[in-house]
Amino acid sequence: MPGNSFGKIFKITTWGESHGKGVGVIVDGCPPRIPLDEMVVQRMLDRRKPGGSNASTSRKEPDKAVIMSGVFEGKTTGTPIMIMVKNKDADSRAYKPTSKLFRPGHGDITYHSKYGIRDWRGGGRASARETVGRVAAGAVAAAVLEKEDISVLAYTIELGGIKAEKRDQNVVSNNMFYSPDMDAAKEMEKRVLSVKNKGDSLGGILEIIAKGVPMGLGEPVFDKLDADLAKGLMSIGAVKGVEIGAGFEASTMLGSENNDQIAAKGFLGNNSGGILAGISNGENIVIRVAVKPIPSILIEQKTIDLDNKPASISTKGRHDISPIPRINVVCESMVNLVITDHLLRQKAIS
Amino acid sequence: MPGNSFGKIFKITTWGESHGKGVGVIVDGCPPRIPLDEMVVQRMLDRRKPGGSNASTSRKEPDKAVIMSGVFEGKTTGTPIMIMVKNKDADSRAYKPTSKLFRPGHGDITYHSKYGIRDWRGGGRASARETVGRVAAGAVAAAVLEKEDISVLAYTIELGGIKAEKRDQNVVSNNMFYSPDMDAAKEMEKRVLSVKNKGDSLGGILEIIAKGVPMGLGEPVFDKLDADLAKGLMSIGAVKGVEIGAGFEASTMLGSENNDQIAAKGFLGNNSGGILAGISNGENIVIRVAVKPIPSILIEQKTIDLDNKPASISTKGRHDISPIPRINVVCESMVNLVITDHLLRQKAIS
Amino acid sequence: MPGNSFGKIFKITTWGESHGKGVGVIVDGCPPRIPLDEMVVQRMLDRRKPGGSNASTSRKEPDKAVIMSGVFEGKTTGTPIMIMVKNKDADSRAYKPTSKLFRPGHGDITYHSKYGIRDWRGGGRASARETVGRVAAGAVAAAVLEKEDISVLAYTIELGGIKAEKRDQNVVSNNMFYSPDMDAAKEMEKRVLSVKNKGDSLGGILEIIAKGVPMGLGEPVFDKLDADLAKGLMSIGAVKGVEIGAGFEASTMLGSENNDQIAAKGFLGNNSGGILAGISNGENIVIRVAVKPIPSILIEQKTIDLDNKPASISTKGRHDISPIPRINVVCESMVNLVITDHLLRQKAIS
Amino acid sequence: MPGNSFGKIFKITTWGESHGKGVGVIVDGCPPRIPLDEMVVQRMLDRRKPGGSNASTSRKEPDKAVIMSGVFEGKTTGTPIMIMVKNKDADSRAYKPTSKLFRPGHGDITYHSKYGIRDWRGGGRASARETVGRVAAGAVAAAVLEKEDISVLAYTIELGGIKAEKRDQNVVSNNMFYSPDMDAAKEMEKRVLSVKNKGDSLGGILEIIAKGVPMGLGEPVFDKLDADLAKGLMSIGAVKGVEIGAGFEASTMLGSENNDQIAAKGFLGNNSGGILAGISNGENIVIRVAVKPIPSILIEQKTIDLDNKPASISTKGRHDISPIPRINVVCESMVNLVITDHLLRQKAIS
Repeated sequence: MPGNSFGKIFKITTWGESHGKGVGVIVDGCPPRIPLDEMVVQRMLDRRKPGGSNASTSRKEPDKAVIMSGVFEGKTTGTPIMIMVKNKDADSRAYKPTSKLFRPGHGDITYHSKYGIRDWRGGGRASARETVGRVAAGAVAAAVLEKEDISVLAYTIELGGIKAEKRDQNVVSNNMFYSPDMDAAKEMEKRVLSVKNKGDSLGGILEIIAKGVPMGLGEPVFDKLDADLAKGLMSIGAVKGVEIGAGFEASTMLGSENNDQIAAKGFLGNNSGGILAGISNGENIVIRVAVKPIPSILIEQKTIDLDNKPASISTKGRHDISPIPRINVVCESMVNLVITDHLLRQKAIS
Repeated sequence: MPGNSFGKIFKITTWGESHGKGVGVIVDGCPPRIPLDEMVVQRMLDRRKPGGSNASTSRKEPDKAVIMSGVFEGKTTGTPIMIMVKNKDADSRAYKPTSKLFRPGHGDITYHSKYGIRDWRGGGRASARETVGRVAAGAVAAAVLEKEDISVLAYTIELGGIKAEKRDQNVVSNNMFYSPDMDAAKEMEKRVLSVKNKGDSLGGILEIIAKGVPMGLGEPVFDKLDADLAKGLMSIGAVKGVEIGAGFEASTMLGSENNDQIAAKGFLGNNSGGILAGISNGENIVIRVAVKPIPSILIEQKTIDLDNKPASISTKGRHDISPIPRINVVCESMVNLVITDHLLRQKAIS
Repeated sequence: MPGNSFGKIFKITTWGESHGKGVGVIVDGCPPRIPLDEMVVQRMLDRRKPGGSNASTSRKEPDKAVIMSGVFEGKTTGTPIMIMVKNKDADSRAYKPTSKLFRPGHGDITYHSKYGIRDWRGGGRASARETVGRVAAGAVAAAVLEKEDISVLAYTIELGGIKAEKRDQNVVSNNMFYSPDMDAAKEMEKRVLSVKNKGDSLGGILEIIAKGVPMGLGEPVFDKLDADLAKGLMSIGAVKGVEIGAGFEASTMLGSENNDQIAAKGFLGNNSGGILAGISNGENIVIRVAVKPIPSILIEQKTIDLDNKPASISTKGRHDISPIPRINVVCESMVNLVITDHLLRQKAIS
Repeated sequence: MPGNSFGKIFKITTWGESHGKGVGVIVDGCPPRIPLDEMVVQRMLDRRKPGGSNASTSRKEPDKAVIMSGVFEGKTTGTPIMIMVKNKDADSRAYKPTSKLFRPGHGDITYHSKYGIRDWRGGGRASARETVGRVAAGAVAAAVLEKEDISVLAYTIELGGIKAEKRDQNVVSNNMFYSPDMDAAKEMEKRVLSVKNKGDSLGGILEIIAKGVPMGLGEPVFDKLDADLAKGLMSIGAVKGVEIGAGFEASTMLGSENNDQIAAKGFLGNNSGGILAGISNGENIVIRVAVKPIPSILIEQKTIDLDNKPASISTKGRHDISPIPRINVVCESMVNLVITDHLLRQKAIS
């Protein structure tokens, strides 16, 4: 049973391979009469464009979003919104020599075992390029959330071991790593350049905050808000861990420390990360995700080929050094999607 | 849109409140001709019974599983399997005095805001008792997996800050905390007793290992195996974080360290935790979950009542000190459910 | 992938076999704070009880509904409502002699081929007794619809070739066949007795009317209101045809005849049956379903056994002569379920 | 909750409006390694092209299918297959004068009431052009079914009251109405021309036969094969009735007539239409659908405008006289989709 759809009422289905004819998404279930045009989508897509930082590949992707359906005279009509980005700068010749090898840390070997066939051009469907559809859909979701004064922001709190000590959300857009700490951003840049020179790659940690989420979103007992957030974020290729509120720290706390006591004016803490028993409690929703380093590295690595013969591989194509900062808008988009879906789900029974 | 179902092909729907007439589950989509009887289910349920350790409540729950449908002459028939456990020892009077208060760390306040009505008896649907249905379904899933030589084990690697240094899976059943380290288990016991005396509670960390999972399970791009595992585990009340393989550690590694290189005989490491690009790679699947301390504590805490008036609350009912070790079998069950579902999903296209 | 669930937001899952321990349903997604008790459910269930007419079996089914969860102090809480009816008068010995034969017109042979195992006691899951869950759920749906002044009525317009000439909805409850024509009801009774004496069985046609359905329900393009109604009704065992509005008659009309012209005060006809482009138009929704005769007959018929050997079979158990009138409340229930589901679906985007 | 998806394992989602940028479909869940190219899809699409008969509009639609993803080197890869047809000959000026009027028999008024906004150009999403996506997906399904020697054929058994007396499937492609009776086809042509001259339109009845369907497809109790067929076919705009096997005729039969007795070599009749208890029984699956006349007619009709003011309307655009024969391939496609979905669903538990 296929898994290319996400969400129940605000439901998206993505399509496309890295070096096929294009990538895109159908957003099905967007409420009607939401203002939407291609600029809104493009702004979000531009944030995942390579070239924004020296951690990113130099591959040029114009990533020009075209809304093919579902919008009429600047507003959504309630019908499916198909958004498409054609693939242009897709040179697959670079992948030909390794088309019979399984790149370590990549899905080459698992796609091959699952389907018995694999589009080896640029990672095919397993490429990060698949996230174009998610981000385009996330832009539509953000347009819905904007009407409810809900906003979501992802920022980098750690990159290659360099931690952001501050949490100044105002400076997040002022540095190429979306760091809330300008000093840390400078250290991150140094770290990235040093690792780039060695042909290696880096991971990091993002924090995502959703503000303005009303109480009552999330569906007991399996479609809890945190459960759906965890799924959405873990479904992003490079993500290996997700925690809500105090997260793994909570495991070492006493109950008396971890409980957020309640006063008339609201909660006296936010260890819960804005979610109690899977339902939003009106506080900021706080999530952290662990991002693994890019698996494509220049350093030579052991692998095997289609015939199970040993081989070695070194990735010389244009690649990011770290999924951060391009992955940030993808994480933001997934959170936008989950909250929008649950907002509509709650309306159905209200 | 409701959220009481989990899984797509091996699909479960749980029902029941803590102090209602019973709790249970419908397992829909179980393949036919799987040997199954009430003993198989009961054995799994007994593992979540209170009283197994001094971290647990003394509430007596016979938790007698009855298979109401879907099994004929000792075998599944392909029709829905309804398993029910009647509530017996459910004294709700203890909850009456606090029926108008919102217990900190609990879902009282969020259920009330979501539904405008709340079954306050023993936490209602938000009670850990809801997991009876998950565990009963997990037992059915385990019966399916057994035919494929797939097994899942959850053990405690940290409790109240006490870490298990060893990973001896053979001793897991030999101590009340399901610890893979007998020495750590003794320290955990001391820690639990000390905190119990203070009227406080503890959290911890579990590790879950699935062995024998064949390559190829998991559905790109949203229903990745790790995404569904993350959702399933995060949907358990006390879980605040989930990580796969190297998890948060991966964020500080270099690509050359984190990549699992490949040899003819298999992978040369398992930082991926057995999942590449969301698809199982034949290695052990390794997951860790962070468990928060039980929110019901004897220590007095600030809260508000239904009229938003300040109040204080101290939980005097019978309660666990930690979700561990009773939560272990619940985590195991969720992993059993996810793997079984994906096993059947893969068969559909094979 | 299993098929025991129906509906998307107001979602039901039925369970149980004819001669197992019981039958029932989980209603998931019912809005909170709807008044509900066991009497409401029982009243609906009593309408499908045998013994109401001489077309029905004399098997006694107390069919005592118990609400196991999801209702607190007389109101729904938003959590799953599990309703159970234990099987009491289930003597399966009568089925033993034919347990190796495939009864013509029944699902014995197809269940066996699908699952490789079959609960032969009383038709197992394929028994009409499965509809207990549908009817119990339909009662919950009706409680939701009542708040919106929507009502659904099913009546018999043909039985064994006897047509009701009148459409007097006031007399429907005054005769055992739910006929809107008292004179026809008398003829139907004669027809039933005559066929009963011959050991044969009868089919018929029902008409179902839903009044008060607001404009705007139904989801283009696959989950059209008429599409979901057709599915829900065709999923009832004995139903072989479904038509909306003018139905098959429309195929012979000219466009100028079939189109319902529109005036300021509303539509000038209802050939559409209250549904245009799959969306309700505010007129009465009008549906007709064709019901086949009961396949269990006393007259001897040719069949085969499990070993593909020729055999003959004559059903001597207690059986209805016609699915009508017991099927009427089942049809009504399915329509209640579809409309409730679409009512909530529409709220999500409103 | 949106309704633009159909199928569970072989799942399609269609998008696009009549006069937007294009129409298309994502097929998600197609098994890998199925031979597929654009020719296969184009052949099916060409059958719904206008101009094939004088019952059809003269609007020119090149309907050039482009496979945007999911196919690599002539084979499906298991990833989503997006097929797109750009809209070219879409002159929406003709619709401008009636953009504020609700056309009788059309979804104008219901779309407006549902969404509060309407793309009035050419019927928007409610246009028959939406079926392009269904037919493209049906072509993919047919490619899957071909490997299993399953084939589906739709033919016209009645048009404007002219009945086909013969059932010669060999001549179906030899006349423009897909009639299995060449003589009837001639009469149909006369009937069409006569009605065309009067500015009116016609409906009819199709029969659809699926051959080679193995025993065991269909999922009790709601996703019965006939239930899903009824939904799929009723979801086509012009369809107002669906019947399986003997259908409405069965309602007048005795049980002894309607039951298909069984012999060692197979069933001794096919009143069941190849489906027993919702599961295929190995016989031909036989379905009939009632098609209403095209609502767009030259004859003037009463209607209202957006301000509820009376008005009159006469459709002068290029329109078909009857949905038949263009709808035939659409019906065939829906049956292809349902059977493919259930084929894969059955594999999951086999």
